[in-house]
Amino acid sequence: MNSSIIRFILGYILKTEAALLLLPCLVALIYTEKEGLWYLPVAAAAFLLGALMTRRKPKDSVFYLKEGCIATSLSWIFLSFFGCLPFCLTGEIPSFTDALFETVSGFTTTGASILSDVEALSHCSLFWRSFTHWVGGMGVLVFLLAIVPLSGGSNINLMRAESPGPSVGKLVPKVRYTARILYLIYFGMTVIEMILLLLGKMPLFDAVCISFGTAGTGGFGIKNDSMASSSPYLQWVVTIFMILFGINFNAYYLIIFDKIKKALKMEEIRYYLLIIAASIGIIFISILDTCATAFEALTHAAFQVASIITTTGFSTTDFNQWTSTCKVILVLLMFVGACAGSTGGGIKVSRFVILFKTVKKEFTSYIHPKSIKKIQMDGKPVDHETIRTVNVYIITFMVLFVFSVFLVSFDNTDIITGFTAVAATINNIGPGLELVGPVENFGFFSPFAKYVLIFDMLAGRLELFPLLLLFHPSIWRDLFAYKMSVHSSKKCLQNRAGGSN
Amino acid sequence: MNSSIIRFILGYILKTEAALLLLPCLVALIYTEKEGLWYLPVAAAAFLLGALMTRRKPKDSVFYLKEGCIATSLSWIFLSFFGCLPFCLTGEIPSFTDALFETVSGFTTTGASILSDVEALSHCSLFWRSFTHWVGGMGVLVFLLAIVPLSGGSNINLMRAESPGPSVGKLVPKVRYTARILYLIYFGMTVIEMILLLLGKMPLFDAVCISFGTAGTGGFGIKNDSMASSSPYLQWVVTIFMILFGINFNAYYLIIFDKIKKALKMEEIRYYLLIIAASIGIIFISILDTCATAFEALTHAAFQVASIITTTGFSTTDFNQWTSTCKVILVLLMFVGACAGSTGGGIKVSRFVILFKTVKKEFTSYIHPKSIKKIQMDGKPVDHETIRTVNVYIITFMVLFVFSVFLVSFDNTDIITGFTAVAATINNIGPGLELVGPVENFGFFSPFAKYVLIFDMLAGRLELFPLLLLFHPSIWRDLFAYKMSVHSSKKCLQNRAGGSN
Repeated sequence: MNSSIIRFILGYILKTEAALLLLPCLVALIYTEKEGLWYLPVAAAAFLLGALMTRRKPKDSVFYLKEGCIATSLSWIFLSFFGCLPFCLTGEIPSFTDALFETVSGFTTTGASILSDVEALSHCSLFWRSFTHWVGGMGVLVFLLAIVPLSGGSNINLMRAESPGPSVGKLVPKVRYTARILYLIYFGMTVIEMILLLLGKMPLFDAVCISFGTAGTGGFGIKNDSMASSSPYLQWVVTIFMILFGINFNAYYLIIFDKIKKALKMEEIRYYLLIIAASIGIIFISILDTCATAFEALTHAAFQVASIITTTGFSTTDFNQWTSTCKVILVLLMFVGACAGSTGGGIKVSRFVILFKTVKKEFTSYIHPKSIKKIQMDGKPVDHETIRTVNVYIITFMVLFVFSVFLVSFDNTDIITGFTAVAATINNIGPGLELVGPVENFGFFSPFAKYVLIFDMLAGRLELFPLLLLFHPSIWRDLFAYKMSVHSSKKCLQNRAGGSN
Repeated sequence: MNSSIIRFILGYILKTEAALLLLPCLVALIYTEKEGLWYLPVAAAAFLLGALMTRRKPKDSVFYLKEGCIATSLSWIFLSFFGCLPFCLTGEIPSFTDALFETVSGFTTTGASILSDVEALSHCSLFWRSFTHWVGGMGVLVFLLAIVPLSGGSNINLMRAESPGPSVGKLVPKVRYTARILYLIYFGMTVIEMILLLLGKMPLFDAVCISFGTAGTGGFGIKNDSMASSSPYLQWVVTIFMILFGINFNAYYLIIFDKIKKALKMEEIRYYLLIIAASIGIIFISILDTCATAFEALTHAAFQVASIITTTGFSTTDFNQWTSTCKVILVLLMFVGACAGSTGGGIKVSRFVILFKTVKKEFTSYIHPKSIKKIQMDGKPVDHETIRTVNVYIITFMVLFVFSVFLVSFDNTDIITGFTAVAATINNIGPGLELVGPVENFGFFSPFAKYVLIFDMLAGRLELFPLLLLFHPSIWRDLFAYKMSVHSSKKCLQNRAGGSN
């Protein structure tokens, strides 16, 4: 394995984080908060270590999926480690475990918090907390690809390891430009949301933080009641932008380049919108009696559905008080998640569409045994390899999910709490039900359970395999005994490239 | 489709049920209960209808998987309909929905009851209730195959549709002899259990009913506290026999024919016993404090684990009071289920073994992309078709499960109740948690929810596809417009035969 390129990428990541850590310092300057000072030594340390790691250029800049996965997992772990230090140093989150939980929750765009009183945080820390959502949403390695000139055509493997969904395609032939276009769309949409929130008389600081949370589909609130006390206008703006950020960004690319017809034909988006509409409809009917007006019911239903399916995690009401039917729908939406290629988490709509089509095909084969129709998606046949990886993904997901629920159950909370805590973290949502409901927090869990959930958040964000791969003994053997086997790696590239379109 | 052969099989099933319905009459004679009289008109009606349906021999006795599936599903529906009538007529279960629920629960070997006071039932009805477990355990069509001379080699399709597990093999070249051997082993083991229970001073009637419940992995108790008031000796006998009936019957066949080595090498059984041992171990440690002696804790742990993993559903204690960890383990065991080719339900250990091996292979392909090792089971490579059908099975199972939980949630019970009620019925277990816990019953559900659960019990017992196939419109078109397309059917046979070994 080419471990020198991994070191090199990690170094760049640290230097990038050092730069990002200066932003909360700026916020602290504006609000004259002394907490901001603590961000400086952390930034300096990250920069120094980063500089040290990037001093020597890698001997060989070729890397493949395995290296991409390892680099990505380690990057996220490094990012989270340095990112949590300011919280500890300012004393705002004294426990390291808690600070790490909060930071991983931020970068993975989960939005699950251990804080019971968010409003007690300084502005700079609140900003950093929400900013981690924005950074994690589109992916820090995608950002790196957009700005750092990494040689070779093989850096698509970095993007593949970090981007959500069963298939990662390049929008344009060059990965670098693809990454830039993605970040431009992301940045543009975030700014538009900010402006719309400002028009609704939201203070600038709040508008910035909430937009970061929406864009990354994160969900850290800056008020203790999340979005409950905001005006209906603001709630609707956030609702609509949550849904928009849950859509495959390829669609926006197509729209920009005047291929609206092609964008409208994307099956995943149609199903995504259909699921949202159906869920809002059912919940609207269920909660109609408990709300003052039909509009209020619609607002709450739409906000919560959008927040959960896009795995954002903001809330305007305590949905833990809703009927079982509503809660079952929300729990299901937790697993469905947003579209592939969006900033949302969960299993992704496209995977479910492929699954349903597989089942449908099986039934057809009972009735018409001669039929050999292939499963189609967006009018193109889905190749066998994609179907296989989707199946394997779901199975691995279930195994990790079940194992996590088992480990968290040592805390002896009720089953719904344990089940939804894992569901809310592995799918990068934030709130669950009962003790981790929207008006509660994750602070009461034991450190052991918190580390399990931290692992789940990272595994969920990186779509399981890159992180789980770290636990394979051969990876560590390879990492320390750098052996470049071009032949096997080339094979890997071929295998993967064929399998993920 | 060859609908005349389906009619013919259904007729035979009804005649068989008529004969079986005479057994409770006999019990009523012994205990001089007048309730037994009501079994006679039902038996007569079933016989008459059956005779009518078998009067004309089918024009063509060849049938394939599609016909096998339809015949099986309809048989189970007919069986349940006639089987529930005595409960209504005697007035012991006045509501038809409740009586149908109880009977489907019996035949599918679920053991979920709507009765709050089981001990109020007459002996003949108690006997019939437990006897349905025994009939449903090995399968009534397998019984039919053993006694009725159905021509052609294609009747393996009937067995395939009814027998649990991803693969159905013939023990001996003739399906008829395979069915006979299976029933002989089944009968023999049931008798041995009865004798052992009698040696433990259990009254004969109880020993018969409990043995039926264990053999079919059903779980209807004849006491309100299930097995809680039985002596530890009796509890251990039942524990061991539950585990034995959860083992693939092929193993017993191999043991009988002196191929013990081959039986011991069956991977599924090894994993099955391993899961049981691990689960007992963890639960034993968890409940040690709450029990008077270590032996008592071990007895309870072993009994509950054996009861749930084999999907029997007897209980010796209210495990709803146990810690979250124990409950999580039990819920997981509900889904794992017993071995394929046993009388137990659930998803089956072998399917999980195949799934785990698939995931492991995926990881290997990340590390060693060149490797093209095939997944092996019992030393033989598992073909691609089996892996695919296992995946499709799990997906279909999840879809049906989730949809059922959603429908049951209209009753607005707590989520755990809804979730475990569906889990306990679709996996043919019996008790769940909370309101459907081991000391509770299913009586409080709305008729709508009961029909959903009835459907789940049948779907779970018949392993989804045969029952779900009934909902395909083309099946009904075919059933009433008998068109025999030998070519397509032959193709079907070839397809299936290749895919399920």
